[in-house]
Amino acid sequence: MVNLLDLASRRISTRKFSSEEIRIEDVIYAIEVARQAPSGANRQPWRFIIVYDNELKMEIRKYCEEVEKIFHEKAPTWMKKWLSEKGITWRKEFLTTAPLLILVFGKRNEPYWVQSVWLAIGYMLLALEEKGLASLTYTPPRVDWANRLLNVPTEYILQTIIPIGISKEENKKKIRFELKDILYCNKWNNPCKNLQILEGNEI
Amino acid sequence: MVNLLDLASRRISTRKFSSEEIRIEDVIYAIEVARQAPSGANRQPWRFIIVYDNELKMEIRKYCEEVEKIFHEKAPTWMKKWLSEKGITWRKEFLTTAPLLILVFGKRNEPYWVQSVWLAIGYMLLALEEKGLASLTYTPPRVDWANRLLNVPTEYILQTIIPIGISKEENKKKIRFELKDILYCNKWNNPCKNLQILEGNEI
Repeated sequence: MVNLLDLASRRISTRKFSSEEIRIEDVIYAIEVARQAPSGANRQPWRFIIVYDNELKMEIRKYCEEVEKIFHEKAPTWMKKWLSEKGITWRKEFLTTAPLLILVFGKRNEPYWVQSVWLAIGYMLLALEEKGLASLTYTPPRVDWANRLLNVPTEYILQTIIPIGISKEENKKKIRFELKDILYCNKWNNPCKNLQILEGNEI
Repeated sequence: MVNLLDLASRRISTRKFSSEEIRIEDVIYAIEVARQAPSGANRQPWRFIIVYDNELKMEIRKYCEEVEKIFHEKAPTWMKKWLSEKGITWRKEFLTTAPLLILVFGKRNEPYWVQSVWLAIGYMLLALEEKGLASLTYTPPRVDWANRLLNVPTEYILQTIIPIGISKEENKKKIRFELKDILYCNKWNNPCKNLQILEGNEI
């Protein structure tokens, strides 16, 4: 396997998926990896539903687009402008074009439950990339419909939907801040000495 | 490199560190990996301060233990019992025994900032493990002191402290729920068919 920096660097958020099938074993592998993550008091407040049923994917898309329409209508003017510049609409094609979705639920009232679930999602995205699978974390503006649709007990809350498949994405990786702008040593704004050596080495 | 499942499976939360030095380059590598993580609207709401100055580590420990003492005093009886059963006290030796700490800050008011920061922390923990470095995510019960101590602007909030070093931990990895208890297909409580094949293979 390549190293983690290669893996993390090559991963991009993907909204365009090909119709190619994928191996569910690879998706379960990524959940196996997420299952190993640490969590507050080891309470493991994560639950996963893999959705590959086509009708169910269509229903999920319908619910998401309904709440997105309301969100887009109610957005303040500046946000409407920003969304339109980015080409973001209420349409969420990837929820039906991706061959498979993982719905990630968090168990509320557990210590640091949101933090723990998202840490595990970090593990999962890298594991999907390791298996050559493209993914996105998409969180609809309202999520209560998911409990009703999938019979999920109310103590669990949908945290995100991860569409998974083979990428047809044309976008490149979005630019990241430079290391020197997000990393300091011993004090805010105090540069770390070794950074330049590292940047010379281009790790 | 081993695969991600090996890496994730062997990582444990470490509270006991040896006095061995570590390479700061390996720590910066882990931050490079975290920097590649996706974030809400690509706002990258994470900032990192590496602390290796010994006096500063002692000050950080002093502040954490002060707020821990108050937390432990005020804890309800059932929690006091739980903490004592787990052997958890207000003492946080690892903040000075670890050769190095990463303080992770989140920029509030960015979209999904907590989620994004913790996803990146997931990336970071795996990268530290890849480099053979032990780590812990420790979040003190109050964090406002960190802004004053390290001159951090108020829009950034300490999310966690990650002590890093060479492990002397005697604990084994804590047990995780079985896959069948956290993963369903298409509906809550609906088992995924392929799991048994996978468990037979013991990936």
